Amino acid sequence: MEYTKPLARLIEYFQKLPSIGPKTAQRLALHVIKMPENEVKNFANALIEAKTTISYCDICFNMSSSNPCEICSNPARNKSVICVVAETKDLMAIEKTNEYLGVYHVLQGLISPIDGIGPDDIRIKELLFRVNQNNVNEIILALNPSVEGEATSLYLTKLLKPFNVKVSRIAFGLPMGSELEYVDEMTLARALEGRVEL
Amino acid sequence: MEYTKPLARLIEYFQKLPSIGPKTAQRLALHVIKMPENEVKNFANALIEAKTTISYCDICFNMSSSNPCEICSNPARNKSVICVVAETKDLMAIEKTNEYLGVYHVLQGLISPIDGIGPDDIRIKELLFRVNQNNVNEIILALNPSVEGEATSLYLTKLLKPFNVKVSRIAFGLPMGSELEYVDEMTLARALEGRVEL
Repeated sequence: MEYTKPLARLIEYFQKLPSIGPKTAQRLALHVIKMPENEVKNFANALIEAKTTISYCDICFNMSSSNPCEICSNPARNKSVICVVAETKDLMAIEKTNEYLGVYHVLQGLISPIDGIGPDDIRIKELLFRVNQNNVNEIILALNPSVEGEATSLYLTKLLKPFNVKVSRIAFGLPMGSELEYVDEMTLARALEGRVEL
Repeated sequence: MEYTKPLARLIEYFQKLPSIGPKTAQRLALHVIKMPENEVKNFANALIEAKTTISYCDICFNMSSSNPCEICSNPARNKSVICVVAETKDLMAIEKTNEYLGVYHVLQGLISPIDGIGPDDIRIKELLFRVNQNNVNEIILALNPSVEGEATSLYLTKLLKPFNVKVSRIAFGLPMGSELEYVDEMTLARALEGRVEL
Protein backbone atom coordinates (compact mmCIF):
# COMPACT_ATOMS: atom_id res chain seq x y z
CA MET A 1 0.00 0.00 0.00
CA GLU A 2 1.27 3.46 -0.80
CA TYR A 3 0.42 6.38 1.43
CA THR A 4 0.42 9.81 -0.13
CA LYS A 5 3.97 11.16 0.60
CA PRO A 6 3.39 13.73 3.36
CA LEU A 7 1.19 11.22 5.17
CA ALA A 8 3.81 8.47 4.88
CA ARG A 9 6.39 10.84 6.35
CA LEU A 10 4.17 11.81 9.28
CA ILE A 11 3.31 8.18 10.02
CA GLU A 12 7.01 7.39 10.00
CA TYR A 13 7.72 10.10 12.60
CA PHE A 14 4.91 8.96 14.87
CA GLN A 15 6.18 5.41 14.61
CA LYS A 16 9.59 6.42 15.90
CA LEU A 17 8.03 7.40 19.22
CA PRO A 18 8.09 4.80 22.00
CA SER A 19 5.12 2.40 22.22
CA ILE A 20 3.64 3.66 18.94
CA GLY A 21 3.21 0.84 16.42
CA PRO A 22 2.28 1.15 12.74
CA LYS A 23 -1.49 0.99 13.41
CA THR A 24 -1.44 3.67 16.08
CA ALA A 25 0.91 5.82 13.99
CA GLN A 26 -1.56 5.68 11.12
CA ARG A 27 -4.47 6.56 13.40
CA LEU A 28 -2.59 9.51 14.88
CA ALA A 29 -1.54 10.82 11.48
CA LEU A 30 -5.09 10.59 10.10
CA HIS A 31 -6.29 12.41 13.20
CA VAL A 32 -3.78 15.21 12.65
CA ILE A 33 -5.07 15.71 9.10
CA LYS A 34 -8.57 16.18 10.46
CA MET A 35 -7.46 18.65 13.14
CA PRO A 36 -7.90 22.41 12.55
CA GLU A 37 -4.79 23.86 10.91
CA ASN A 38 -3.93 26.25 13.76
CA GLU A 39 -4.11 23.38 16.26
CA VAL A 40 -1.57 21.44 14.19
CA LYS A 41 0.69 24.49 14.04
CA ASN A 42 0.44 24.94 17.81
CA PHE A 43 1.31 21.29 18.30
CA ALA A 44 4.33 21.64 16.01
CA ASN A 45 5.44 24.75 17.92
CA ALA A 46 5.00 22.98 21.26
CA LEU A 47 7.35 20.25 20.02
CA ILE A 48 10.02 22.71 18.99
CA GLU A 49 9.61 24.89 22.07
CA ALA A 50 9.85 21.95 24.47
CA LYS A 51 12.93 20.65 22.69
CA THR A 52 14.75 23.99 22.47
CA THR A 53 13.92 25.44 25.91
CA ILE A 54 14.13 22.40 28.15
CA SER A 55 17.48 21.36 29.52
CA TYR A 56 18.83 19.73 32.68
CA CYS A 57 19.02 21.42 36.06
CA ASP A 58 22.67 21.96 37.08
CA ILE A 59 21.90 20.92 40.64
CA CYS A 60 19.60 17.89 40.44
CA PHE A 61 19.60 17.04 36.68
CA ASN A 62 15.83 17.24 36.48
CA MET A 63 14.50 18.39 33.10
CA SER A 64 13.42 22.01 33.18
CA SER A 65 13.20 25.18 31.15
CA SER A 66 14.71 27.09 34.07
CA ASN A 67 18.04 26.51 35.78
CA PRO A 68 18.06 25.70 38.65
CA CYS A 69 14.79 23.86 38.10
CA GLU A 70 11.45 24.79 39.66
CA ILE A 71 11.97 22.32 42.50
CA CYS A 72 15.55 23.31 43.37
CA SER A 73 14.65 27.00 43.30
CA ASN A 74 11.48 26.60 45.36
CA PRO A 75 12.20 28.00 48.87
CA ALA A 76 9.43 25.80 50.30
CA ARG A 77 11.29 22.60 49.43
CA ASN A 78 13.49 21.06 52.11
CA LYS A 79 17.03 21.05 50.69
CA SER A 80 18.33 18.77 53.45
CA VAL A 81 16.46 15.73 52.11
CA ILE A 82 17.47 14.42 48.69
CA CYS A 83 15.46 11.73 46.93
CA VAL A 84 17.63 9.87 44.41
CA VAL A 85 15.83 8.62 41.27
CA ALA A 86 17.04 7.11 38.00
CA GLU A 87 15.06 9.22 35.53
CA THR A 88 12.94 12.36 35.31
CA LYS A 89 9.84 10.22 34.89
CA ASP A 90 10.46 8.68 38.32
CA LEU A 91 10.72 12.16 39.83
CA MET A 92 7.40 13.01 38.18
CA ALA A 93 5.78 9.89 39.61
CA ILE A 94 6.87 10.88 43.12
CA GLU A 95 5.78 14.50 42.62
CA LYS A 96 2.30 13.26 41.73
CA THR A 97 1.89 11.73 45.19
CA ASN A 98 2.04 15.27 46.64
CA GLU A 99 3.67 13.66 49.67
CA TYR A 100 7.30 14.63 49.22
CA LEU A 101 8.63 18.05 50.09
CA GLY A 102 12.38 17.51 49.79
CA VAL A 103 14.48 17.88 46.65
CA TYR A 104 15.73 15.33 44.12
CA HIS A 105 18.78 14.00 42.38
CA VAL A 106 18.25 12.43 38.97
CA LEU A 107 21.01 9.91 38.26
CA GLN A 108 20.12 9.80 34.56
CA GLY A 109 20.54 6.05 34.52
CA LEU A 110 21.41 3.06 36.69
CA ILE A 111 24.59 1.04 37.04
CA SER A 112 24.32 -1.81 34.55
CA PRO A 113 27.59 -3.64 33.75
CA ILE A 114 25.80 -5.72 31.12
CA ASP A 115 25.02 -2.51 29.17
CA GLY A 116 28.47 -1.11 29.91
CA ILE A 117 27.10 1.53 32.29
CA GLY A 118 29.40 2.03 35.26
CA PRO A 119 29.22 4.41 38.25
CA ASP A 120 31.04 7.12 36.29
CA ASP A 121 28.44 7.11 33.53
CA ILE A 122 25.65 8.35 35.78
CA ARG A 123 25.40 11.42 38.03
CA ILE A 124 26.91 9.85 41.14
CA LYS A 125 29.87 12.21 41.63
CA GLU A 126 27.46 15.14 41.35
CA LEU A 127 25.40 13.59 44.17
CA LEU A 128 28.51 13.19 46.34
CA PHE A 129 29.42 16.80 45.62
CA ARG A 130 26.00 17.93 46.85
CA VAL A 131 26.23 15.81 49.99
CA ASN A 132 29.71 17.20 50.63
CA GLN A 133 28.74 20.83 50.10
CA ASN A 134 25.41 21.21 51.79
CA ASN A 135 23.73 20.30 55.01
CA VAL A 136 22.11 17.11 53.81
CA ASN A 137 20.39 15.07 56.52
CA GLU A 138 18.82 12.27 54.55
CA ILE A 139 19.22 10.55 51.20
CA ILE A 140 16.19 8.54 50.10
CA LEU A 141 16.97 5.98 47.41
CA ALA A 142 13.93 5.58 45.15
CA LEU A 143 15.27 3.25 42.48
CA ASN A 144 13.34 0.46 40.76
CA PRO A 145 13.37 -2.94 42.47
CA SER A 146 15.31 -4.38 39.49
CA VAL A 147 18.81 -5.88 39.31
CA GLU A 148 20.19 -2.51 38.15
CA GLY A 149 18.23 -0.58 40.76
CA GLU A 150 19.39 -2.86 43.56
CA ALA A 151 23.01 -2.75 42.38
CA THR A 152 22.95 1.04 42.24
CA SER A 153 21.28 1.29 45.68
CA LEU A 154 23.92 -0.99 47.16
CA TYR A 155 26.75 0.98 45.55
CA LEU A 156 25.36 4.31 46.73
CA THR A 157 24.77 3.03 50.26
CA LYS A 158 28.43 2.01 50.55
CA LEU A 159 29.63 5.23 49.01
CA LEU A 160 27.51 7.38 51.33
CA LYS A 161 28.58 5.56 54.51
CA PRO A 162 31.55 7.88 55.27
CA PHE A 163 29.34 10.96 55.10
CA ASN A 164 27.37 11.59 58.22
CA VAL A 165 24.01 11.24 56.51
CA LYS A 166 21.00 8.98 56.94
CA VAL A 167 20.43 6.77 53.90
CA SER A 168 17.01 5.16 53.44
CA ARG A 169 15.29 3.25 50.67
CA ILE A 170 11.62 3.34 49.68
CA ALA A 171 9.69 0.25 50.79
CA PHE A 172 9.18 -2.74 48.52
CA GLY A 173 6.15 -4.91 49.24
CA LEU A 174 2.55 -5.54 48.32
CA PRO A 175 1.01 -2.83 46.17
CA MET A 176 -2.19 -1.29 47.53
CA GLY A 177 -5.31 -3.15 46.46
CA SER A 178 -3.41 -6.30 45.56
CA GLU A 179 -4.28 -9.71 46.95
CA LEU A 180 -1.74 -11.79 48.81
CA GLU A 181 -2.90 -14.87 46.93
CA TYR A 182 -2.06 -13.42 43.53
CA VAL A 183 1.10 -11.50 44.26
CA ASP A 184 4.33 -13.01 42.84
CA GLU A 185 6.73 -14.79 45.20
CA MET A 186 9.53 -12.24 44.84
CA THR A 187 7.25 -9.43 45.98
CA LEU A 188 5.88 -11.48 48.83
CA ALA A 189 9.39 -12.45 49.93
CA ARG A 190 10.40 -8.75 49.94
CA ALA A 191 7.23 -7.86 51.84
CA LEU A 192 8.02 -10.42 54.54
CA GLU A 193 11.64 -9.33 54.72
CA GLY A 194 10.58 -5.70 55.01
CA ARG A 195 7.95 -6.28 57.71
CA VAL A 196 7.63 -3.45 60.26
CA GLU A 197 6.85 -3.77 63.92
CA LEU A 198 3.46 -2.46 64.99
CA MET B 1 2.86 18.01 40.47
CA GLU B 2 3.94 20.86 38.23
CA TYR B 3 5.62 20.18 34.92
CA THR B 4 7.96 22.84 33.60
CA LYS B 5 5.75 24.94 31.27
CA PRO B 6 6.88 23.90 27.78
CA LEU B 7 6.73 20.27 28.86
CA ALA B 8 3.21 20.68 30.26
CA ARG B 9 2.11 22.20 26.97
CA LEU B 10 3.62 19.39 24.89
CA ILE B 11 2.05 16.73 27.13
CA GLU B 12 -1.28 18.47 26.71
CA TYR B 13 -1.02 18.31 22.91
CA PHE B 14 -0.04 14.65 22.90
CA GLN B 15 -2.96 13.91 25.19
CA LYS B 16 -5.41 15.39 22.72
CA LEU B 17 -4.53 12.68 20.22
CA PRO B 18 -6.76 9.61 20.13
CA SER B 19 -5.83 6.68 22.40
CA ILE B 20 -3.10 8.70 24.14
CA GLY B 21 -3.68 8.89 27.90
CA PRO B 22 -1.78 11.06 30.41
CA LYS B 23 0.92 8.42 31.07
CA THR B 24 1.66 7.83 27.40
CA ALA B 25 1.57 11.57 26.71
CA GLN B 26 4.20 12.11 29.39
CA ARG B 27 6.37 9.30 28.00
CA LEU B 28 6.14 10.68 24.47
CA ALA B 29 6.95 14.22 25.60
CA LEU B 30 9.98 13.08 27.61
CA HIS B 31 11.11 11.10 24.58
CA VAL B 32 10.86 14.18 22.36
CA ILE B 33 13.09 16.12 24.74
CA LYS B 34 15.75 13.43 24.41
CA MET B 35 15.53 13.35 20.60
CA PRO B 36 18.15 15.24 18.55
CA GLU B 37 16.95 18.78 17.83
CA ASN B 38 16.85 18.39 14.05
CA GLU B 39 14.72 15.24 14.39
CA VAL B 40 12.20 17.22 16.45
CA LYS B 41 12.19 19.98 13.84
CA ASN B 42 11.62 17.45 11.06
CA PHE B 43 8.76 15.92 13.03
CA ALA B 44 7.19 19.36 13.53
CA ASN B 45 7.57 20.09 9.81
CA ALA B 46 6.04 16.73 8.90
CA LEU B 47 2.99 17.65 10.98
CA ILE B 48 2.54 20.99 9.26
CA GLU B 49 3.29 19.63 5.81
CA ALA B 50 0.81 16.76 6.14
CA LYS B 51 -1.89 19.11 7.39
CA THR B 52 -1.36 21.80 4.77
CA THR B 53 -0.80 19.65 1.69
CA ILE B 54 -3.26 16.80 2.18
CA SER B 55 -6.81 17.24 1.04
CA TYR B 56 -9.59 15.03 -0.35
CA CYS B 57 -9.65 13.56 -3.85
CA ASP B 58 -12.47 15.13 -5.89
CA ILE B 59 -13.37 11.75 -7.36
CA CYS B 60 -13.22 9.23 -4.53
CA PHE B 61 -12.75 11.44 -1.42
CA ASN B 62 -9.62 9.59 -0.37
CA MET B 63 -7.06 11.72 1.49
CA SER B 64 -4.21 12.74 -0.76
CA SER B 65 -1.72 15.49 -1.51
CA SER B 66 -2.56 15.17 -5.20
CA ASN B 67 -5.94 15.56 -6.87
CA PRO B 68 -7.16 13.20 -8.24
CA CYS B 69 -5.48 10.93 -5.69
CA GLU B 70 -2.73 8.42 -6.48
CA ILE B 71 -5.25 5.60 -6.83
CA CYS B 72 -7.72 7.42 -9.09
CA SER B 73 -4.91 8.67 -11.33
CA ASN B 74 -3.17 5.29 -11.58
CA PRO B 75 -3.83 3.90 -15.10
CA ALA B 76 -3.27 0.35 -13.80
CA ARG B 77 -6.31 0.53 -11.51
CA ASN B 78 -9.58 -0.84 -12.86
CA LYS B 79 -12.03 2.11 -12.89
CA SER B 80 -15.02 -0.15 -13.52
CA VAL B 81 -14.92 -1.64 -10.01
CA ILE B 82 -15.59 0.70 -7.10
CA CYS B 83 -15.09 -0.40 -3.51
CA VAL B 84 -17.19 1.69 -1.12
CA VAL B 85 -15.69 2.31 2.32
CA ALA B 86 -16.66 4.55 5.24
CA GLU B 87 -13.29 6.16 6.00
CA THR B 88 -9.80 6.57 4.56
CA LYS B 89 -8.47 4.16 7.18
CA ASP B 90 -10.70 1.40 5.75
CA LEU B 91 -9.32 2.10 2.28
CA MET B 92 -5.82 1.80 3.72
CA ALA B 93 -6.66 -1.53 5.36
CA ILE B 94 -7.85 -2.90 2.00
CA GLU B 95 -4.83 -1.50 0.15
CA LYS B 96 -2.58 -3.37 2.56
CA THR B 97 -3.98 -6.71 1.41
CA ASN B 98 -2.47 -6.00 -2.05
CA GLU B 99 -5.42 -7.95 -3.44
CA TYR B 100 -7.62 -5.19 -4.79
CA LEU B 101 -6.95 -3.48 -8.10
CA GLY B 102 -10.13 -1.46 -8.56
CA VAL B 103 -10.79 2.06 -7.28
CA TYR B 104 -12.55 3.34 -4.15
CA HIS B 105 -15.26 5.63 -2.94
CA VAL B 106 -14.86 6.99 0.58
CA LEU B 107 -18.27 7.86 2.04
CA GLN B 108 -16.68 9.91 4.86
CA GLY B 109 -19.14 8.43 7.34
CA LEU B 110 -22.04 6.03 7.70
CA ILE B 111 -25.77 6.63 7.97
CA SER B 112 -26.53 6.92 11.68
CA PRO B 113 -29.92 8.45 12.56
CA ILE B 114 -29.02 8.35 16.26
CA ASP B 115 -26.11 10.74 15.58
CA GLY B 116 -28.21 12.77 13.15
CA ILE B 117 -26.25 11.56 10.12
CA GLY B 118 -28.53 10.99 7.14
CA PRO B 119 -27.81 9.90 3.55
CA ASP B 120 -27.21 13.52 2.50
CA ASP B 121 -24.47 13.99 5.07
CA ILE B 122 -22.16 11.45 3.49
CA ARG B 123 -20.79 11.15 -0.06
CA ILE B 124 -23.67 9.10 -1.50
CA LYS B 125 -24.78 11.47 -4.28
CA GLU B 126 -21.17 11.67 -5.43
CA LEU B 127 -21.15 7.87 -5.67
CA LEU B 128 -24.36 7.88 -7.73
CA PHE B 129 -22.84 10.54 -9.96
CA ARG B 130 -19.84 8.31 -10.63
CA VAL B 131 -22.02 5.29 -11.35
CA ASN B 132 -24.11 7.40 -13.69
CA GLN B 133 -21.17 8.91 -15.55
CA ASN B 134 -18.76 6.07 -16.02
CA ASN B 135 -18.78 2.48 -17.11
CA VAL B 136 -19.01 0.93 -13.68
CA ASN B 137 -19.51 -2.83 -13.62
CA GLU B 138 -19.37 -3.61 -9.93
CA ILE B 139 -19.79 -1.84 -6.61
CA ILE B 140 -18.26 -3.68 -3.65
CA LEU B 141 -19.63 -2.54 -0.29
CA ALA B 142 -16.90 -2.83 2.34
CA LEU B 143 -18.58 -1.30 5.37
CA ASN B 144 -18.21 -2.44 8.98
CA PRO B 145 -20.58 -5.16 10.19
CA SER B 146 -22.16 -2.68 12.63
CA VAL B 147 -25.71 -1.28 12.80
CA GLU B 148 -24.60 1.82 10.87
CA GLY B 149 -22.63 -0.20 8.33
CA GLU B 150 -25.55 -2.55 7.73
CA ALA B 151 -28.02 0.31 7.42
CA THR B 152 -25.81 2.12 4.92
CA SER B 153 -25.23 -1.09 2.91
CA LEU B 154 -28.98 -1.69 2.76
CA TYR B 155 -29.67 1.89 1.70
CA LEU B 156 -27.00 1.82 -1.01
CA THR B 157 -28.16 -1.56 -2.33
CA LYS B 158 -31.68 -0.21 -2.83
CA LEU B 159 -30.42 3.02 -4.36
CA LEU B 160 -28.12 1.22 -6.80
CA LYS B 161 -30.79 -1.25 -7.98
CA PRO B 162 -32.02 0.92 -10.91
CA PHE B 163 -28.48 1.24 -12.30
CA ASN B 164 -27.37 -1.75 -14.30
CA VAL B 165 -24.50 -2.57 -11.95
CA LYS B 166 -23.52 -5.57 -9.86
CA VAL B 167 -23.55 -4.78 -6.14
CA SER B 168 -21.65 -7.07 -3.78
CA ARG B 169 -20.69 -6.98 -0.14
CA ILE B 170 -17.50 -8.29 1.49
CA ALA B 171 -18.00 -11.54 3.42
CA PHE B 172 -18.68 -11.60 7.14
CA GLY B 173 -17.71 -14.77 8.98
CA LEU B 174 -15.00 -16.42 11.06
CA PRO B 175 -11.70 -14.54 11.03
CA MET B 176 -8.68 -16.55 9.94
CA GLY B 177 -6.98 -18.37 12.81
CA SER B 178 -10.02 -18.11 15.06
CA GLU B 179 -11.61 -21.12 16.75
CA LEU B 180 -15.26 -21.95 16.25
CA GLU B 181 -15.58 -22.67 19.94
CA TYR B 182 -14.56 -19.15 20.97
CA VAL B 183 -16.17 -17.07 18.27
CA ASP B 184 -19.18 -14.96 19.37
CA GLU B 185 -22.68 -16.09 18.36
CA MET B 186 -23.35 -13.14 16.06
CA THR B 187 -20.26 -13.91 14.00
CA LEU B 188 -21.08 -17.60 13.89
CA ALA B 189 -24.66 -16.87 12.84
CA ARG B 190 -23.38 -14.64 10.02
CA ALA B 191 -20.88 -17.31 9.01
CA LEU B 192 -23.63 -19.92 8.78
CA GLU B 193 -25.90 -17.56 6.88
CA GLY B 194 -23.09 -16.72 4.49
CA ARG B 195 -22.07 -20.33 3.81
CA VAL B 196 -20.87 -20.99 0.26
CA GLU B 197 -21.39 -24.13 -1.76
CA LEU B 198 -18.27 -26.16 -2.44
